[in-house]
Amino acid sequence: MKHTLYIVGFGPGSYEHMTQKAIDVMKTVDEIVGYTTYVNLVKEYFPEQNYMTTPMRKEAERCLFAIEQVEEGKDVALISSGDSGVYGMAGIALQLVQERKSDIHVEVVPGVTASSASASVLGAPLMHDFATISLSDLMTPLDLIMKRVECCAMGDMILCFYNPRSKKRNDYIIKAVEKILLYQKESVPVGIVRHAGRQEEESFLTTLGELKDFENWEEEKKNKLDMFSMVIVGNSSTYVKDGKMITPRGYQI
Amino acid sequence: MKHTLYIVGFGPGSYEHMTQKAIDVMKTVDEIVGYTTYVNLVKEYFPEQNYMTTPMRKEAERCLFAIEQVEEGKDVALISSGDSGVYGMAGIALQLVQERKSDIHVEVVPGVTASSASASVLGAPLMHDFATISLSDLMTPLDLIMKRVECCAMGDMILCFYNPRSKKRNDYIIKAVEKILLYQKESVPVGIVRHAGRQEEESFLTTLGELKDFENWEEEKKNKLDMFSMVIVGNSSTYVKDGKMITPRGYQI
Repeated sequence: MKHTLYIVGFGPGSYEHMTQKAIDVMKTVDEIVGYTTYVNLVKEYFPEQNYMTTPMRKEAERCLFAIEQVEEGKDVALISSGDSGVYGMAGIALQLVQERKSDIHVEVVPGVTASSASASVLGAPLMHDFATISLSDLMTPLDLIMKRVECCAMGDMILCFYNPRSKKRNDYIIKAVEKILLYQKESVPVGIVRHAGRQEEESFLTTLGELKDFENWEEEKKNKLDMFSMVIVGNSSTYVKDGKMITPRGYQI
Repeated sequence: MKHTLYIVGFGPGSYEHMTQKAIDVMKTVDEIVGYTTYVNLVKEYFPEQNYMTTPMRKEAERCLFAIEQVEEGKDVALISSGDSGVYGMAGIALQLVQERKSDIHVEVVPGVTASSASASVLGAPLMHDFATISLSDLMTPLDLIMKRVECCAMGDMILCFYNPRSKKRNDYIIKAVEKILLYQKESVPVGIVRHAGRQEEESFLTTLGELKDFENWEEEKKNKLDMFSMVIVGNSSTYVKDGKMITPRGYQI
């Protein structure tokens, strides 16, 4: 009998935002494989399961281990937060399965991605065309990232920034804002959500003008912008009212 | 006691892709309000519930009705497929609540959006920066839509097209492809998924070059491109292998 590698996106992290399918798969597989932080997020919900963790940036090893487990006759869930198909493990897992000419069954289980989870906290910023850009240049040249930011701003698109800031990439978000400001006003609203959909969730609203001045923010506020945060920059019609960030879609109301 | 308007995205349509929260809300509210097609999709899972349907394009009326029900002391779920925060009902509902100065509680419940559901069917096309563009010009001028398409192609971004074709908008997808071809090769893979994540799901792979020639497709194949379809256009590094559409993320494997 063929066994299955499920590539599972379990959403923001809390049980309530997992899909029924993700829950069913994690409950029933023989082994759950993931990066330590992700495993810690789901362990409390499925304490009886077998887990195997690998450190960050060992994506290929993690996938290979999961594939081998399936080849040996187990059903395995390779997990990541958000949607496994958005900057997730689906790509590298499929690539490795193909390279090995492995005949295991692979199923990608989609989840609620971070931009959706963050938008729901802020109000309704994604009612219009938007782009999703990662500010991590580990695997994409910074020039290309910034070109994309500028192209999207030129098209007056809403922007969702994944991985907006790390210790080594302290100022990329400022560079990105400078590109956007070539086309947008300083008053355009920006929503920042940290740990969207998790217990520690926090969010606040700012503007492109204020974010340009990020270097001068107080340390405590600066720290709310890190690898656990999502930055959503509105388009020219986005506004804030009663604490909600809204991009109107043009219905007659 | 304050009652709540839940703006629920129930994902592609099948029970398995609903989040736990969406299920809990739909099970427990006093009334479920939605466009007829959406209500028919969820009714079979929650047959005991009270439903109120309104026709398509009556978004404001539907929201107002839902808000009034909450004001009268009910908990209400205003439902849509996918993620309620992506081209969904979250925006107009929040706008109307604010306009009425209603003091009801509003909660946006995020779901699996159509681009995630479609990507999981095709393989792993969204491993890199991507844009989400609706080809419906009901509420966005066609020129702006096409400008966005061109800007994103210029930035070598993956593109997800919502509402790619209707009877009145037969050729917009061709116009979009022509814009993309100013920057991309004809060989760039395109994945088309219809009814992603539902029982009737079907998908196929094509290329920008073939899609440019859409007018000459056989009628049966043409009909697979409609308002229930999602079109995902790769970037310059996207490829197809063993029937899977993959945008590699640059891991060392």
